[in-house]
This record gives sequence, C-alpha cells and structure tokens, in this order.
Amino acid sequence: MTIYSPSIERAIEALSSLPTIGRKSAQRLVFHLLRQPRESVERLAHALIELKANVRYCSVCYTFTEQDPCSICTSQSRQRSIICVVEQPSDVFAIERTGEYRGLYHVLHGTLDPLQGITAEQLKIEPLLERLRDGGVEEVILALNPTVEGEVTTHYLAKLIAPLGITITRIARGVPVGMDLEFADEATLSRALAGRSDVR
Amino acid sequence: MTIYSPSIERAIEALSSLPTIGRKSAQRLVFHLLRQPRESVERLAHALIELKANVRYCSVCYTFTEQDPCSICTSQSRQRSIICVVEQPSDVFAIERTGEYRGLYHVLHGTLDPLQGITAEQLKIEPLLERLRDGGVEEVILALNPTVEGEVTTHYLAKLIAPLGITITRIARGVPVGMDLEFADEATLSRALAGRSDVR
Repeated sequence: MTIYSPSIERAIEALSSLPTIGRKSAQRLVFHLLRQPRESVERLAHALIELKANVRYCSVCYTFTEQDPCSICTSQSRQRSIICVVEQPSDVFAIERTGEYRGLYHVLHGTLDPLQGITAEQLKIEPLLERLRDGGVEEVILALNPTVEGEVTTHYLAKLIAPLGITITRIARGVPVGMDLEFADEATLSRALAGRSDVR
Repeated sequence: MTIYSPSIERAIEALSSLPTIGRKSAQRLVFHLLRQPRESVERLAHALIELKANVRYCSVCYTFTEQDPCSICTSQSRQRSIICVVEQPSDVFAIERTGEYRGLYHVLHGTLDPLQGITAEQLKIEPLLERLRDGGVEEVILALNPTVEGEVTTHYLAKLIAPLGITITRIARGVPVGMDLEFADEATLSRALAGRSDVR
C-alpha cells in the first residue's frame, strides 16, 4: 500500500519511469510541481504532448524533424556531396553544435548487435545505400560511437559502400580535448598514438 | 539561435525548469521521450495535469490531499490528542513512512525567515493555534528541520503554545542511524551528546 493519494502516486510513477529519475527524485519533483502555479505545470504537460505530436522522422535522413524533409536535407547552403552517418538523432545535434560540419546526415537508429537481435534490416542501412546509389555523394563520414557495436557497424558499412566508389572516412579516435593523459584508458591512448599527425 | 526545432526546444526548456534537471539532462529526457510510444508520453503529461487538478491543501492540517479534510484528519484510528507540526507536506509523508506515528499533523508551509521576508502571518500558525484552542490536544510535537530557521520557528511556536497548557516536545537531534561518528559534524555530535539517554 502506498501512503500517497492516487494522483500523487500516478505522477511519481510516471516520472520515475524516465531514465536517471529514481523514485526519490520523482517524489521531490512532484512536491515541487504541487507548489508551482497550475499554468506552469500545464505548460510542461502540453510541451510533452506537442513534442510527440509534432516531431517525426525525416524521410530522407531519419533525424527528428517537424517538417519533412528536415531543414538540413532541404537547406541550399549545405554541402550535398558529403553524408555523415550517425547512430542517433541526438548525434546530429551534437555535431551541429560544433558549427564545423556543413554536409548532410544519415541516422541509422542503432548499431548492429546480434546479441540483442539487431540486424541490418532493423537499421536505416538500405535507405542510406539508396541515397548513395542516387549519385552526387563523394564522401561518407562514419561517425558511430567508439564501442564494439559501433566498430562492427563501421566495418560492415564500409564493406557495403566500397563498391560504389565513394570515399569512406571515419572520425578520429583519440584523447578528448581537456583530458589529462593519465586519466585516459589504454584503448584510447593506443588509438591516439596510432592516429598521430604531424605538428603544423 | 537554437539548433532544435520549436517543439523540441519548448520541451527541453520546460523540463530544465525543474529542480535538479539541467539543460543536458533535459535534452537526454526529450530524446528518450521521442523514442517512446505516444501513449506513454501522454500518460506522463496527463498524470501531471491531473496532479495539479486533483490535489489541494487539507483545510484542517494543510497537507496535500485529494479529499478535504484529508484521510489522516478524518481517520477514526488516529490518536486525536497529538499533533505533529512540520514544515512541508513532504515531511508528513516522510514521517508516515516510518509507520511509527499514529497522531495528527499540521503543516506550517515554511519557517520564519525575516531575511526572506517570511513572517508568522505567511505560515499556517494561526490555524494551528485555533486547532489547539478548540481543545482535545494534549501534546504538540515540533518536527521542524534542524536548521537555523527551524530552530527559530520552534522557539517561537513553543512560546505561543505554552500558555495553552499543552505538552510541547520536539524530535531528537543526534547522529543519523547508520552514520559513522567520524563523518558527523560537530553541531550534530554535540547535540547527540547533550541528548544522551540511559542504555536500556
């Protein structure tokens, strides 16, 4: 039996179903919301409802968008000869925040993971190959996470794309900017050494 | 300028207005919600709307409740001669979770804090005195937080209640159960020493 009334209990349960929010944090959030004016709680609730109602996948690159195709795919100022392949829509936003990249994207929505039963058919690999076959793309940047699954998927994609005669690159793996060498793990350090470049 | 579309940005802003949720966590929550089925996001949104719509203050003890007076104030099995005074409704639930207390409650909704401009009139002190004047109460337990403001309010209330001839007690301050003595601060340790009791 719970000591909370039904509405409080339901709100705690709903909030604690979110990642990184445990039951204690959910309780604290609920008591915070109960002290807020009704309008601000309703603003939050409606923002969540509209989020789900308005945001869908771009039919070209499969990132999150409110217009289809997305603003990057339809932009006249982007370089259409480069496609950066990422795992998740959040990776698109992470790269956009750098302000360095002016090409297009393609979101796979995951990585190959046979143990979890995720095969090539469940990822947006076939739509990527279609885009590449349509021509006009000169370089594909594989920007998957530096994990075992990311590696496997990178090599799988490279093998599929190679016959199309397109340049295939991958983002550098090395020591993060601002990190002390002594705290870098061995795998990162050996990658950083192997990927060393001339001092210019 | 933001790189997110309006609906995503609004959801991030609304979520990051909550305590302990920064912009980064809000972004992560939004991307999580976008991957969830629409129904589960709407269930969360409606739980928040109903929370605000259904929950109000008990007109007797001022805790959060969906029926007025609350289930504790109307319960036949509670001891009506003891009132435990707390700062916030969340304190009521914290004490209820112990399962040890069978009396009634009274929520002040804050503590005296002249620096923040919080005076006795803004707290539910007058309603408490009315309840006590109505008779039938033999003991008032002051269970305010062990802070400067909590101390000041405890003494202020004790002075107001004393003329009514009611027993006034306060909860013990000491070393928390499970805590190592070496990590207890000096104030807590001196309180624990001063409040020592016979070993039974």
